[in-house]
Amino acid sequence: MPVVQIHMLEGRSPEKKARLLASVTQAIVESLEVPPSSVRVIISEMRHDHFAIGGVPVSERP
Amino acid sequence: MPVVQIHMLEGRSPEKKARLLASVTQAIVESLEVPPSSVRVIISEMRHDHFAIGGVPVSERP
Amino acid sequence: MPVVQIHMLEGRSPEKKARLLASVTQAIVESLEVPPSSVRVIISEMRHDHFAIGGVPVSERP
Amino acid sequence: MPVVQIHMLEGRSPEKKARLLASVTQAIVESLEVPPSSVRVIISEMRHDHFAIGGVPVSERP
Amino acid sequence: MPVVQIHMLEGRSPEKKARLLASVTQAIVESLEVPPSSVRVIISEMRHDHFAIGGVPVSERP
Amino acid sequence: MPVVQIHMLEGRSPEKKARLLASVTQAIVESLEVPPSSVRVIISEMRHDHFAIGGVPVSERP
Repeated sequence: MPVVQIHMLEGRSPEKKARLLASVTQAIVESLEVPPSSVRVIISEMRHDHFAIGGVPVSERP
Repeated sequence: MPVVQIHMLEGRSPEKKARLLASVTQAIVESLEVPPSSVRVIISEMRHDHFAIGGVPVSERP
Repeated sequence: MPVVQIHMLEGRSPEKKARLLASVTQAIVESLEVPPSSVRVIISEMRHDHFAIGGVPVSERP
Repeated sequence: MPVVQIHMLEGRSPEKKARLLASVTQAIVESLEVPPSSVRVIISEMRHDHFAIGGVPVSERP
Repeated sequence: MPVVQIHMLEGRSPEKKARLLASVTQAIVESLEVPPSSVRVIISEMRHDHFAIGGVPVSERP
Repeated sequence: MPVVQIHMLEGRSPEKKARLLASVTQAIVESLEVPPSSVRVIISEMRHDHFAIGGVPVSERP
């Protein structure tokens, strides 16, 4: 009964997001040997100025 | 001093959300015997294409 | 299909935790008008030296 | 630069967890077309009495 | 390799957010003695009617 | 009224953790111009085999 949250930068296409939800679920189903219906996956998009690596927002990276 | 995060699908009315915040807080106050002022509750809304059960986004469920 | 995470200090009895899980679920069911089986609640306990208010760990509060 | 958190019940073998971390990362790499080194995955284990579906802890399910 | 999530009310200026990301990163670098590039910080903004203290949304506080 | 969660590898000394809680709080107080008492910080420790970069658990990195 895993619950997964994926924080990722905004801007991906609907197709990529749908593919992501399906493939991460499949990876969990196979790794943990659980039924697909038990897996919940949440996408949490981040704005580029709301995520920093080394203190620098991704929006300001070259 | 509990901190609660509620992930839920977007689209609920302001009235439902206000009721949710009040009643979840009350449930915690009574269960844990803590003062109301110590309880913080965060609503995090999810888009219907950002939440999947069994790998299928809720936006595509019949 | 709400997913709830409750961060709270460790040390509560099993009875209090069971009551918490039941009553928070009930509060959500009534507020959002969703079936009980759609609600998942996670308790995440915090050590007293892993939670600070105003920069002071709860373990050091008088 | 996705950051993933997986909440799952405790009790899985080290082998299953290692497989999970590798396969979820791979699923993200392929879906989002990002380099593997940009992906971080966190496993957060839940005790069976700290996770409830429908208000009932998993530890008490038949 | 810390990952930090900051939930805060929306409405801050871009300058304040950039300052926040830089200074929280610096605080972690100095406290834990880790390289800046290992630190990731996520800002998650909350609407004023999505965050409650004592069951009352911040949007309704006097 | 920010709420901060810091995911970090386990194994730090109590002194480092106390310093972390104080300095991150101070960074937020100064950046956002909020009173210290409004800031909550949670440390969530990760086991070395529960955190992966590029699909490889930190416990297996050279």
